[in-house]
Amino acid sequence: MEDSLFSRDIAAAQAIAKPKRPPNPDTDLIDVHKWFRMQPNLEVRFGQTLRQSIDEVLDGQRTGRFNMKDLEKTEKTYLGTKVEIITRAEFELGRGNKMDFSIAGHDVDSKFTSGDNWTIPREADGHICLLIKASDHKASYQVGLLRIHDDFLNLGANRDGKRTPSAAGRDAIEWIIPEGKLPENILLTLSEQDREAIFKTGLSGQSRTNELFRRVQGRSVNRNTVLTVARQDDSPKRVRDARHHLRSAGIMILGHQKQHPYIARDLGLRVPEKGSWVAVRVAHLDNTQSARRSTRISGQDYAVWKEGDRPVPAPAEY
Amino acid sequence: MEDSLFSRDIAAAQAIAKPKRPPNPDTDLIDVHKWFRMQPNLEVRFGQTLRQSIDEVLDGQRTGRFNMKDLEKTEKTYLGTKVEIITRAEFELGRGNKMDFSIAGHDVDSKFTSGDNWTIPREADGHICLLIKASDHKASYQVGLLRIHDDFLNLGANRDGKRTPSAAGRDAIEWIIPEGKLPENILLTLSEQDREAIFKTGLSGQSRTNELFRRVQGRSVNRNTVLTVARQDDSPKRVRDARHHLRSAGIMILGHQKQHPYIARDLGLRVPEKGSWVAVRVAHLDNTQSARRSTRISGQDYAVWKEGDRPVPAPAEY
Repeated sequence: MEDSLFSRDIAAAQAIAKPKRPPNPDTDLIDVHKWFRMQPNLEVRFGQTLRQSIDEVLDGQRTGRFNMKDLEKTEKTYLGTKVEIITRAEFELGRGNKMDFSIAGHDVDSKFTSGDNWTIPREADGHICLLIKASDHKASYQVGLLRIHDDFLNLGANRDGKRTPSAAGRDAIEWIIPEGKLPENILLTLSEQDREAIFKTGLSGQSRTNELFRRVQGRSVNRNTVLTVARQDDSPKRVRDARHHLRSAGIMILGHQKQHPYIARDLGLRVPEKGSWVAVRVAHLDNTQSARRSTRISGQDYAVWKEGDRPVPAPAEY
Repeated sequence: MEDSLFSRDIAAAQAIAKPKRPPNPDTDLIDVHKWFRMQPNLEVRFGQTLRQSIDEVLDGQRTGRFNMKDLEKTEKTYLGTKVEIITRAEFELGRGNKMDFSIAGHDVDSKFTSGDNWTIPREADGHICLLIKASDHKASYQVGLLRIHDDFLNLGANRDGKRTPSAAGRDAIEWIIPEGKLPENILLTLSEQDREAIFKTGLSGQSRTNELFRRVQGRSVNRNTVLTVARQDDSPKRVRDARHHLRSAGIMILGHQKQHPYIARDLGLRVPEKGSWVAVRVAHLDNTQSARRSTRISGQDYAVWKEGDRPVPAPAEY
């Protein structure tokens, strides 16, 4: 009896010293991987999930922030929770027994980082993690799966006992989306000069919105960007008013309604999706310039303005 | 020289041992207090700020949660940040030099608790704190000011070095709103039976919405409650469909549009504000019951249904 108790102790000690190797092949992890690969529009949906999560925590309408470096520590921590909540809602995932999600019948933990590496708590040992990483500056994101094991983690733990995947761990990640496109955060991409002009102290929300569409042309500007710049609700109203203010400068702002998508297509612009706008400065087109793309509005042909064109106001109605 | 250095050390040691007493009278704190008292609709605006903060972190539309006990620790921590963000936006406050807000030219730190007491970090020593406390279960909140001083804090600190106001500290709070009304979280007030019927497993979002309006009558149900129950966006659409489903049960759902406010007033119901609804079961009224409050819809008089009334369908159009 004593012997057998003793050998059980040894076995237990060994179990602690050398955690069970992950199953090979890891059929559970393969199930989870397959489940994701079967979801329609997977890459677009993960991209939107991450865009939405980041935008909600930046809370641009209230704070004017568009750069994640301006988030406080509690907000950065919470961003991981927001990603988990929106991912669960987007893919209609249930909760796992011990982990955040149940996917294809398996427990999966959600781990997000906007930095270089993930922090993995002790509780995730032996479990499959959905590792999500996003860079707003690079407008890219990655999603992968890793079954957590000591061999895959760096030795040092932070004061909460959390560790980071090692080089070997990162090599072992099964990528679901190795390189995804995060919808662009247009305010991050502006030149310092444009940014300063838009956010100049003393400008009203409407003036900032006008400045945004004066300076950002031919690119899709979404609702959240307008809210962040205007610091007011009702972004469509701000855009309508900007249309009025920018008319004399020859600038049109096209949305997804009325004839706007056709005008955008005629002019070779990106066709605005619902809740986004594209600004463009236009010029009158006479008969001698038939090679240029143009659109006819109230009997007048307009083309995208280029150097040398005569300055004209934008159409009054479109 | 040595003597004077020595006495400087003593003075420094005394300064550490006995922190400077708060000024008396504390004119800065009085300024801040006056500033808040001058804000129009102060109590309503703080109530809405806290309701909005709690609802955003519960994220009912995505999670179905309506009880703060279901929040994770990171979410509870973040709730304080959300209160700070919405308070800053609601009252258009600037940032302080060292603290969260600049109010009437003075640095003020924001501290929120949904529990019994606040946790005060070392950095707040000597500074004015805006102490905000909310109880969703009691539908109440408090807002006050306290200049942080060792005499006002309990001795024990948590592992982050944060301490809580002592009984003396709580006595010293200058209340701005000693007892405010937090807009009601109606789902928290339901009986267990009603709650189980609404959230019964297997019901669709629309069926849950129908059940909500079947069971909650004569009370204002807001947009967030509908979103939390339906777990879908477009709450007005869910309500319109519920109107159709509940018609045969004699239940009307009144909003703020069309003739609805007049109907509500006629029937002695709370008049729904924008983005909220009031359900009511109605009965036909004949000429012999002229004492009852009634409203005429398409030539038929309706009263609020009571025991003994004949079951009739609600009007088809209203």
